[in-house]
Amino acid sequence: MNYTLHNIPERTEKPRQKGLTMVMDKGLSLRQVEDFLEVSGTHTDIVKLGWATSYVTPNLKEKLALYRSAGIPVYFGGTLFEAFAIRNQFEDYQRVLDEFGMEYAEVSDGSMDIVHEEKCEYIAKLAKQVTVISEVGSKDATKIFAPYKWIQLMKAEIEAGSWKVIAEAREGGNVGIYRGTGEVREGLVDEILTQIPDERIIWEAPQKEQQVWFIKLIGTNVNLGNIAPAEVIPLETIRLGLRGDTFDYFLNK
Amino acid sequence: MNYTLHNIPERTEKPRQKGLTMVMDKGLSLRQVEDFLEVSGTHTDIVKLGWATSYVTPNLKEKLALYRSAGIPVYFGGTLFEAFAIRNQFEDYQRVLDEFGMEYAEVSDGSMDIVHEEKCEYIAKLAKQVTVISEVGSKDATKIFAPYKWIQLMKAEIEAGSWKVIAEAREGGNVGIYRGTGEVREGLVDEILTQIPDERIIWEAPQKEQQVWFIKLIGTNVNLGNIAPAEVIPLETIRLGLRGDTFDYFLNK
Amino acid sequence: MNYTLHNIPERTEKPRQKGLTMVMDKGLSLRQVEDFLEVSGTHTDIVKLGWATSYVTPNLKEKLALYRSAGIPVYFGGTLFEAFAIRNQFEDYQRVLDEFGMEYAEVSDGSMDIVHEEKCEYIAKLAKQVTVISEVGSKDATKIFAPYKWIQLMKAEIEAGSWKVIAEAREGGNVGIYRGTGEVREGLVDEILTQIPDERIIWEAPQKEQQVWFIKLIGTNVNLGNIAPAEVIPLETIRLGLRGDTFDYFLNK
Repeated sequence: MNYTLHNIPERTEKPRQKGLTMVMDKGLSLRQVEDFLEVSGTHTDIVKLGWATSYVTPNLKEKLALYRSAGIPVYFGGTLFEAFAIRNQFEDYQRVLDEFGMEYAEVSDGSMDIVHEEKCEYIAKLAKQVTVISEVGSKDATKIFAPYKWIQLMKAEIEAGSWKVIAEAREGGNVGIYRGTGEVREGLVDEILTQIPDERIIWEAPQKEQQVWFIKLIGTNVNLGNIAPAEVIPLETIRLGLRGDTFDYFLNK
Repeated sequence: MNYTLHNIPERTEKPRQKGLTMVMDKGLSLRQVEDFLEVSGTHTDIVKLGWATSYVTPNLKEKLALYRSAGIPVYFGGTLFEAFAIRNQFEDYQRVLDEFGMEYAEVSDGSMDIVHEEKCEYIAKLAKQVTVISEVGSKDATKIFAPYKWIQLMKAEIEAGSWKVIAEAREGGNVGIYRGTGEVREGLVDEILTQIPDERIIWEAPQKEQQVWFIKLIGTNVNLGNIAPAEVIPLETIRLGLRGDTFDYFLNK
Repeated sequence: MNYTLHNIPERTEKPRQKGLTMVMDKGLSLRQVEDFLEVSGTHTDIVKLGWATSYVTPNLKEKLALYRSAGIPVYFGGTLFEAFAIRNQFEDYQRVLDEFGMEYAEVSDGSMDIVHEEKCEYIAKLAKQVTVISEVGSKDATKIFAPYKWIQLMKAEIEAGSWKVIAEAREGGNVGIYRGTGEVREGLVDEILTQIPDERIIWEAPQKEQQVWFIKLIGTNVNLGNIAPAEVIPLETIRLGLRGDTFDYFLNK
């Protein structure tokens, strides 16, 4: 830190299990990745190449090498897994993961309908190859699961081999654990937390108000995802009680 | 592409008449242009220097040279034409186009009132000098044209020499073919398409939901404009059915 | 300017007292600062390192040197002052200002409750060390002051030694002088202007509609703040009547 302030909440250190910041790269150039790493590399735990953007970005291998050289794991968004799976190209996907030297992979069913047992089989298969992150929740705003269902799905996926489960929100933060307005489904989150340890969940929280809400509920070291590259520094200040939104909150603790 | 997926919708190839992506640059630095070209150059057909931003950006000549070296045509936003025309400086504008070696120009009347015959005369005059893109629709949210009027204006402008006509939306996507909420005026678009071939129209569609709507209506190779530089990769995935929003749509075709 | 247009409103020149553009940097990399300076340096009067972001950005000294080499003053956001003050570390803050060679500082009470006399004492103390900008208005949307109160606070802070007073809006533009929707509290602004000279006030105006509103009320050379780096060029065109929003307005003057 650049100077000393007393009574700042304690952050866990990398590599961490709690307090993860997962960032979404939806098409950065190599120089933009370098810029991001300069400013936010020390505050970033893992990077997702959003949905299937990796299919069309021409700098993929070089970009992966850049993140790797900074010690930050990268994975392809879950939609890419789904794009392979729905085309019966799952083995191709496994080869792609190897070809690009991926150490993490996401398994999701946000865009396709799949029997949950089958999803768990994919998780189990991939868990032998890479560290698996799986995502619960649909990208379709009309598909709303009851809390007991979220818990059931998360438990089964962790049992199948997921390192962490992601609670869906999309880039916009307006589906899954949020209402269309971006407001948190508070009862849902509370109920999930009675059954699943918070360190096993990454909450997608692209909007500032969502980040603030989860930090106030779970604390400085909550796992948050779908953070835009330019929002990592702002998020870090919110975690530390150094932005208006949590300034009071941590002082009064 | 970085790996092979089956059954991906077919994109036209550059230089294309259908499937254009028109990007708005509202003040990029030279290095930001290079970054943009690295990632999105192959997916971009034409760049607009938004409204009259070219008046105040200090790097204009160098920036034009950069886009040119990548083979991407550039044009000044229509508001610049209007700023010259309303000051009775149209001949100055023609000299500026020559001085900067412009090969495209936009003629619009989104900010000024002008008799349509006069607008068409400007189109005809400029069409002898450059390739003309003309824009229909007001930037004033209270000026709403009936569908037959849109069709009449578009037809007359194409006849006067416009290569493509642009359907107005602004950077925000909340006027012209959209309601103040950003929602598409669906009946208007449907009616326009009964009379004007879709390859002659560039639909300004800065918001993701707008892009999705047009891709579902017209297909992968619809002409879309006012795309922010960082949104070209996301748009390309939507065109290809590789983002949640069109994932189902293309599989079911 | 890159070409000549007649009847463009006259801008004051740097260093200016009226017509200031204050930009918020919430975590730019060094290269991003260079890019910003290339495009917008001549249009920017002063840069704020948003709230306490300077605590967590690793490139602070180098960044300050870059802005300095371009002749643009920089200051730490008011929340940083508050973070020191509320921890009884005010003297530490003064040392930090010296250590980093700061020539400006902000005093605010947007996140903490403080007796106004005490705030004015901080202003007076810091005014002996640096040029002080002080901010009026709470970051808490539920704390709404009556116009006479705003005027009283601004007058007292100017008397205590503030060079300019800032009217609070946050990065989002939805508190202080704005309603939660971003709409200007027009009566409030009008009443403030009957008592405080407009050149002593910097209006935070991150949203385009807010910038347009103030430019139409006060003119081309109004002081505006919390401008995002990429919005300086667009703002400059609005000041000059070269964007749709003020195109008519200046022509008709």
